[in-house]
Amino acid sequence: MSRPRVRDTGIVPGQMEPGPHNAITDVAGVRVGHATLISGEGPLRPGRGPVRTGVTVILPHGDNLFRHKVRAAVHTINGFGKVLGFEQVRELGVIESPIALTNTLNVGLVADALIGHAIERDPDIGIGAVSTVNVVVGETNDGYLNDIQGRHVRAEQVRAAIESASAGPVIEGALGAGTGTVCFGWKGGIGTASRLLPAEAGGYTVGALVQSNFGRPDDLMVCGASVGREIQPPLRPLPRQASPLPDKEGSVMIVLATDAPLDARQLWRLCVRAGAGLARTGSTYGHGSGDFVIAFSTAVRVDHAPGALVMAQPVVADEGRAMHWLFPAVVECVEEAVLNSLFRAETMTGRDGHTTHALPVEQVVDLCRRS
Amino acid sequence: MSRPRVRDTGIVPGQMEPGPHNAITDVAGVRVGHATLISGEGPLRPGRGPVRTGVTVILPHGDNLFRHKVRAAVHTINGFGKVLGFEQVRELGVIESPIALTNTLNVGLVADALIGHAIERDPDIGIGAVSTVNVVVGETNDGYLNDIQGRHVRAEQVRAAIESASAGPVIEGALGAGTGTVCFGWKGGIGTASRLLPAEAGGYTVGALVQSNFGRPDDLMVCGASVGREIQPPLRPLPRQASPLPDKEGSVMIVLATDAPLDARQLWRLCVRAGAGLARTGSTYGHGSGDFVIAFSTAVRVDHAPGALVMAQPVVADEGRAMHWLFPAVVECVEEAVLNSLFRAETMTGRDGHTTHALPVEQVVDLCRRS
Amino acid sequence: MSRPRVRDTGIVPGQMEPGPHNAITDVAGVRVGHATLISGEGPLRPGRGPVRTGVTVILPHGDNLFRHKVRAAVHTINGFGKVLGFEQVRELGVIESPIALTNTLNVGLVADALIGHAIERDPDIGIGAVSTVNVVVGETNDGYLNDIQGRHVRAEQVRAAIESASAGPVIEGALGAGTGTVCFGWKGGIGTASRLLPAEAGGYTVGALVQSNFGRPDDLMVCGASVGREIQPPLRPLPRQASPLPDKEGSVMIVLATDAPLDARQLWRLCVRAGAGLARTGSTYGHGSGDFVIAFSTAVRVDHAPGALVMAQPVVADEGRAMHWLFPAVVECVEEAVLNSLFRAETMTGRDGHTTHALPVEQVVDLCRRS
Amino acid sequence: MSRPRVRDTGIVPGQMEPGPHNAITDVAGVRVGHATLISGEGPLRPGRGPVRTGVTVILPHGDNLFRHKVRAAVHTINGFGKVLGFEQVRELGVIESPIALTNTLNVGLVADALIGHAIERDPDIGIGAVSTVNVVVGETNDGYLNDIQGRHVRAEQVRAAIESASAGPVIEGALGAGTGTVCFGWKGGIGTASRLLPAEAGGYTVGALVQSNFGRPDDLMVCGASVGREIQPPLRPLPRQASPLPDKEGSVMIVLATDAPLDARQLWRLCVRAGAGLARTGSTYGHGSGDFVIAFSTAVRVDHAPGALVMAQPVVADEGRAMHWLFPAVVECVEEAVLNSLFRAETMTGRDGHTTHALPVEQVVDLCRRS
Repeated sequence: MSRPRVRDTGIVPGQMEPGPHNAITDVAGVRVGHATLISGEGPLRPGRGPVRTGVTVILPHGDNLFRHKVRAAVHTINGFGKVLGFEQVRELGVIESPIALTNTLNVGLVADALIGHAIERDPDIGIGAVSTVNVVVGETNDGYLNDIQGRHVRAEQVRAAIESASAGPVIEGALGAGTGTVCFGWKGGIGTASRLLPAEAGGYTVGALVQSNFGRPDDLMVCGASVGREIQPPLRPLPRQASPLPDKEGSVMIVLATDAPLDARQLWRLCVRAGAGLARTGSTYGHGSGDFVIAFSTAVRVDHAPGALVMAQPVVADEGRAMHWLFPAVVECVEEAVLNSLFRAETMTGRDGHTTHALPVEQVVDLCRRS
Repeated sequence: MSRPRVRDTGIVPGQMEPGPHNAITDVAGVRVGHATLISGEGPLRPGRGPVRTGVTVILPHGDNLFRHKVRAAVHTINGFGKVLGFEQVRELGVIESPIALTNTLNVGLVADALIGHAIERDPDIGIGAVSTVNVVVGETNDGYLNDIQGRHVRAEQVRAAIESASAGPVIEGALGAGTGTVCFGWKGGIGTASRLLPAEAGGYTVGALVQSNFGRPDDLMVCGASVGREIQPPLRPLPRQASPLPDKEGSVMIVLATDAPLDARQLWRLCVRAGAGLARTGSTYGHGSGDFVIAFSTAVRVDHAPGALVMAQPVVADEGRAMHWLFPAVVECVEEAVLNSLFRAETMTGRDGHTTHALPVEQVVDLCRRS
Repeated sequence: MSRPRVRDTGIVPGQMEPGPHNAITDVAGVRVGHATLISGEGPLRPGRGPVRTGVTVILPHGDNLFRHKVRAAVHTINGFGKVLGFEQVRELGVIESPIALTNTLNVGLVADALIGHAIERDPDIGIGAVSTVNVVVGETNDGYLNDIQGRHVRAEQVRAAIESASAGPVIEGALGAGTGTVCFGWKGGIGTASRLLPAEAGGYTVGALVQSNFGRPDDLMVCGASVGREIQPPLRPLPRQASPLPDKEGSVMIVLATDAPLDARQLWRLCVRAGAGLARTGSTYGHGSGDFVIAFSTAVRVDHAPGALVMAQPVVADEGRAMHWLFPAVVECVEEAVLNSLFRAETMTGRDGHTTHALPVEQVVDLCRRS
Repeated sequence: MSRPRVRDTGIVPGQMEPGPHNAITDVAGVRVGHATLISGEGPLRPGRGPVRTGVTVILPHGDNLFRHKVRAAVHTINGFGKVLGFEQVRELGVIESPIALTNTLNVGLVADALIGHAIERDPDIGIGAVSTVNVVVGETNDGYLNDIQGRHVRAEQVRAAIESASAGPVIEGALGAGTGTVCFGWKGGIGTASRLLPAEAGGYTVGALVQSNFGRPDDLMVCGASVGREIQPPLRPLPRQASPLPDKEGSVMIVLATDAPLDARQLWRLCVRAGAGLARTGSTYGHGSGDFVIAFSTAVRVDHAPGALVMAQPVVADEGRAMHWLFPAVVECVEEAVLNSLFRAETMTGRDGHTTHALPVEQVVDLCRRS
């Protein structure tokens, strides 16, 4: 792909340093995998296509997550969405399955696929003294381009995404769960970024991955430049005008990872800062936008069958320098991840000839430089 | 079925009057439906059986719920569970689909079935300006009796439960989502109850329905009598002793309905009181017990496409007499619904010859009378 | 005082063993102090008396709490109340001052007194790089007996309560913050209890202290016996009848302590179980009742100026045996603490000749034995 | 005062139209009052001065607030702060007293002053069947300039602020609760702004008032321009360097008002959007910053003694156009209110010769125009 990431254009969001891949995978052990479904074109035939969707999975580590959970937290910025698994993460402070992102109506089947996958790895799940598994699924609505009623993401795609998940650079743009998404009226998708804390603050890494599907065209901001006031996507086809309701504003899923040894309460504090990163891109957390955040730390593994009554766990001191840097790191990562999703995604035509255009990067960069 | 409900035995939980059916369906318009799956016996063959599970649906009214939503709230007492749909109910204060209860690992497929059912009724869902649908699914773990890994509840069972849902008396015990559940070591299942407010408090009705799958045998209380200290279920087979972990305490789903015109905040206040009803049966909200509450009011229909910017909605005055009576009504309903689930459920033998015995009603009643 | 605690009468709430004093002070290091204000009689002269109020303080340890904080959590069962300090405890998971309980309208002055006391011990508070102090104050409304508008608790009483705070047995009943409170129509006040975990669960101690001022007379339950249906307090004077509103149901403050090394999330889980203990005494969390819980662990001290970026902290394993016992321990402590407050409190006559009668212990015990 | 508001300089935050005063008082009925305490100079003598503090009150309407409450909500962005009154607003969804903002250590005395003031207006408070009053107090730490330990705001200042509260233009900058505050290293204080919804969205007004005391100098953004990277305040005196901890980031209190008929849930949704407005000014919700939001609607008065069991209340339709505009209105108001607090505040020298400089407006405007 020839489209640049935002930082490649010379526009630099924030003030902190990114990690080597400027990706959530800069947090050691984290893996990302996608399965992308693109087929058919022309008029929507619900249940048949055209298909522009997929699934993206984030694995906190490469081992058995059910046996070796990670500390985690979740946060709802605007709850107009259908996430699964949040209640148990809130109660127990751990994640014990891959995190999967997909389209809204596919949450049930993707959840079932994750359950099936977990059982394959742990044939005792739900039997005897072994509890059931809490799978975490997020979603956004890709129905403008995709035959969303068709729920085309099935167990084989979920499995493929998990099995192909890898460390290293993350492909961004219109793939996986971001295949059919729309962001500020432009083609959105998957984006990622990372930040390194200074050595005196522990030298930790923070990474973010987003599935961007939110925002009104007027509102887009790029590193402070009010791009949305100057550059607008070509008009969408009729549905918008025909609607008696305001333009729907989509949704965004945000996944945060860090190797800083944070407990669930502290990870929840990170989640809250994702909202500030989102705001920097122009979001006002629109009514119809399901904006959710999931955060985990790779620093500690919480065993399913603990070996002792009490564990000695490392926890970052709230009053020390680490928290001071973790919050702006989250804000910057989320801002840049959203921008990367826009910069990298290519124009996509989907059902009913609906076309979502790629952000005109040169024009945007030019406007940013002038402003 | 010849087993009595608790009130039939002369034991009366609480002080308020029940409605005509002493059931959640005493709230006008509410419908309940079940689909029950019982097949096979002998050793567990994961994915094949034996099957002891099902699905129970609660419909706030008989019309199109997506088009005419009801005001609603949710509450998590202990979040060790896998409910779906809670975030959107918290944000928007409405329920727009049937509420389905099933087994833990079946949440994905049941959710998908509800989505499919909603699309059949509203072919525009997710298309054009029409948003996607938020389905609400609750669960408990019936893996002691059931081949839970098999996820045997499919779209046809969900459809059957919805289509058979009816007003009037509710069958209780080991059916629907309660087919394979265990409560205080005895056979649990579906239970229901209702209460009428005095005329001076508006004459409203409150109803509860539970899927009971919680509690340690020692802790069972029946209207104040410490039954669990005197009467214990026969020993379960080996898994308990073999486990290095404490006995799992299961879960409970509680659904509340009322015709009092409460808003989402007030319905959430009702939900909180369900915890007091649960405590009266001996629950201490065990670590492994996913205890969740869902409440809705049938008094107002919130249209998907509102006709005006502002609606004039009836809302109960917080400082008036209605709230004063609604809270004890909830407590009493939940207590009696749990007891009804125990009194009505018959002994069930499931996978691996696991048997969960019916509560010995005569013995319990005798003990209650003596104490 | 000659009135017995509940356990002295042979009635035993719950199944676990209490600690040596059956008090919150069985958690090593915890101190409790009271200051009681009783003066005047006859007609209410707002601002002048009669006075029937006070303050009770709970100190997690005897050292400087601002410098050496304890891990903590808070929980609101019903938020009709005026607690101070909850937001910061939720965010940071620590308590850094004595916890003070008093009457509702005195929260401001008692908070100011705690602030003043903290400054005396730490003259740098709010100056330079030292942050301000978060004081935690709870309250219930003692206005039936007390000239509550007078806000008679001042800095000297707060100081006296702190300075007199001690380990060992805790005096219960109508003193300190419980001087003027009413519980189920009877004289309530301060009550406490504790429970010991079995050695295999870590042998930890859990303690509760309550300021009981809640409950409708009809609802009182004593270890399962529906005492309130049989034994009613003498009629109160006119105000009840004169009121167009339902009888106010008061409030309760619950403080939990443990030496188990729980983090803030786990302490919050303990708080939730206090609601089950309350329900066992007959509470339905009445509309007008501000029911709040505060919990802390003495196991770890969180230094104001941490010596390192990361601390190695002991944390109980959620999946181990400790959580399994901590929850019923909380439920039993809270139930017994409320009962102790009722059993120990003596009849009190306050403003306008209002009299709140002591629970008739013999009659209650007799009824419990018969039922 | 000759310093301009941000909009006077030609820099326009956001895209919506402000109301006539561009102030929270554009919401009809809302009143704002201040009392400012400036005395002494030179070295800090704790308890004596120098004094640079005050109190700001916001009255939702000019009548008796206890008798005629307004629907309200609260939200905590970062809970490192000492607000009072939040629990009851969450539970009951109303505010029943003036909202007071002051310095952190003065919360107790200001709360007591509000209680005293309420009793003067309603001599029955806490007596008979009349409940006590829930006062709402917010704060930020002005200890860099002010003798914060002295708690110099007393009942007379609170009374003066309430009695002088008025509709119409609001004086901004270093007065009232903003007398001693610091924002992004510059002099902050009180700021306000408003927005009008289009007629098709109901033509409602939204207003915000902030007490700004947050932000790291590097982070200041003015309408997208990264001012903080270019323009830095003169170095503060020693304490910063001497501190082993990161620079404290202060706090912000945000009060939102609207005449749109929102219920408590919807007002809470507005509160969440204040966080996006804050982020636009460069905030990352710093660890040490207590960032709180309070919102109320003037559209409905909730009577203390309701005349009926059920009220017919106007409520905005969530799915209609009003919510669509209310969210960006909040974001823009909060952003502009913070900027106004910075633009209007003049240089202040306080205790120990500490000086906080006024934002160099010309330089900032120049930078904004160039970028």
